[in-house]
Amino acid sequence: MQDGFEAMNELEIIDLIRRMASDQIPGVEIPPGDDAAAFHFSASPVFLTMDTVFEGIHFSRRTYSLGDVGWKATAAGVSDIAAMGGEPSCILVSLGFGEAPAEEEVRSLVGGVLEMASWCNCSLIGGDVCRSGGGMSVTVAVAGIPSPAGPVMRSGALEGDVVGVTGNLGDSAAGLFVLGSERDGLRADYPALVEKHLRPRPRIAEGVLLARAGVSAMEDVSDGLAADICHVCAESGLGCRLEAGLVPISGEARSLAAVAGEDPLMWALEGGEDFELVFTSAPERFGQAVEELASSGCRVTRIGTMVPVFEGRRLTGEGRDIDLEGMGYDHFE
Amino acid sequence: MQDGFEAMNELEIIDLIRRMASDQIPGVEIPPGDDAAAFHFSASPVFLTMDTVFEGIHFSRRTYSLGDVGWKATAAGVSDIAAMGGEPSCILVSLGFGEAPAEEEVRSLVGGVLEMASWCNCSLIGGDVCRSGGGMSVTVAVAGIPSPAGPVMRSGALEGDVVGVTGNLGDSAAGLFVLGSERDGLRADYPALVEKHLRPRPRIAEGVLLARAGVSAMEDVSDGLAADICHVCAESGLGCRLEAGLVPISGEARSLAAVAGEDPLMWALEGGEDFELVFTSAPERFGQAVEELASSGCRVTRIGTMVPVFEGRRLTGEGRDIDLEGMGYDHFE
Repeated sequence: MQDGFEAMNELEIIDLIRRMASDQIPGVEIPPGDDAAAFHFSASPVFLTMDTVFEGIHFSRRTYSLGDVGWKATAAGVSDIAAMGGEPSCILVSLGFGEAPAEEEVRSLVGGVLEMASWCNCSLIGGDVCRSGGGMSVTVAVAGIPSPAGPVMRSGALEGDVVGVTGNLGDSAAGLFVLGSERDGLRADYPALVEKHLRPRPRIAEGVLLARAGVSAMEDVSDGLAADICHVCAESGLGCRLEAGLVPISGEARSLAAVAGEDPLMWALEGGEDFELVFTSAPERFGQAVEELASSGCRVTRIGTMVPVFEGRRLTGEGRDIDLEGMGYDHFE
Repeated sequence: MQDGFEAMNELEIIDLIRRMASDQIPGVEIPPGDDAAAFHFSASPVFLTMDTVFEGIHFSRRTYSLGDVGWKATAAGVSDIAAMGGEPSCILVSLGFGEAPAEEEVRSLVGGVLEMASWCNCSLIGGDVCRSGGGMSVTVAVAGIPSPAGPVMRSGALEGDVVGVTGNLGDSAAGLFVLGSERDGLRADYPALVEKHLRPRPRIAEGVLLARAGVSAMEDVSDGLAADICHVCAESGLGCRLEAGLVPISGEARSLAAVAGEDPLMWALEGGEDFELVFTSAPERFGQAVEELASSGCRVTRIGTMVPVFEGRRLTGEGRDIDLEGMGYDHFE
């Protein structure tokens, strides 16, 4: 608890969250406050995903506001639903506090969750609050429904499929670099990169459009392009050949990398948390995917091709030859 | 990680869990391994609940096996569904490890989750694994469906309703006392109490029967009878009058309490984690509830009456006059 604030007890925290979460959208049958929440889903099957973030591992209170923590933890789960071509419906959150929190802390953290929930037209319908015995932790579960085109899995890629991505990659890692830098003024110079790291916006509408365009496999870029395309390769029993010169990197990330002496391609490959979508598509359908997303204001870039498994998972071009396997963050390595 | 074991990395842990969770029941459309799981629910609305347990707060590895931790964390979520008169359908689990775990540790922890899941005919369909920055943590989300009688909420109690409970109360707290005792042989003398604490069995079938019998409100006894009946009072805008002599306490808990110089009624009121069901019922329907549950081998006991809110929430009789409000465990007090 911060100095100067009065600590809340468990019942007070739960009451505050119930009051904050009282704006309910259609579908909520039983809101927070009972043994379980209840929600009417308007389609089947229901998508379910759950992720936890821990203070000191996934975020630092030195650079994240608690509103950022709540927003981003929720966005990560929402992005998992987007990666299935689905739309999020409702959210549950379990909060662990090392010590009794101040009201302002609960308001900020839950406020961030609710901002993200509201941004994607979801309700916060339940969860849990308890003492953690360590730092702060936030677990978010998101439930959602498929678009009419049905779920898009990681396992559907075919040999010869084009690999595409939405938006730019590496901005989030660039933003993390800015937040961790001691250089004066860097944060003021690159506000959009910091925003991409702290307040990512999952590609929900884009995922639905890609599902409608008939993409064969899809995943969100949460662990870094290298690790995420490798998941698609592993589940589809294929390899991939990505082209270094095609990986979309923003002008701001390039500019920062030049100033900082960093390699922006490695931010894209290893950084993760961009929450863009990487997908595969039959070549003849790729144009439709590009057009569908262009109409919604999102650029799609072809970055490579799915190849037989024995050709491995490589990124080449511009003097590079990178084995993508084993790249990306592993919590226990 | 324990000595003599090789530490696993994140991908190995996820692969192991996917292999362990491969026995799927009907309803699973997309099992663990994609961005999100997908499940076909056979009724609506869908119940959703989520709870986290932390090492050092909710359990100690000195007295709990990791199998116990996994079982009990899952049972707590399943019990929340039972308390709505519902049946659990599928489970997600998010595991936090302070350091890279040994395979045996993951097998034991996930094995406990799967034993509970199998016991209640559920599938483990997804989740998350990461480094916690502290001790171990387990978050379990459970989704379920209502019985044909529909959800039973905490808010439906009426003045004059009878208060009933399933089974015995206080056994779990008695089991915790045994586990924490230094006395030789106590654990061997009271194995059933220890089992009730480490491996609770949620009252799923009983919850469905009580919903069918038309009970007006229901909750599981997770925080202790005092706190849990107070939740029903608060949500229903009523008070209650419980009778000390009617609270069902097992012979074993009474015997242990006599040996240990403890008050078994306080175990029942404050101990929690019994995962029995406390409910309210119109007096004329209470007999049906008793009969329905007797036929399934579960004893139901009348322990009191719902009264106007100004009469407060009290337990009287046998020389006691206890204000139930404010009793029970609060994580931050």
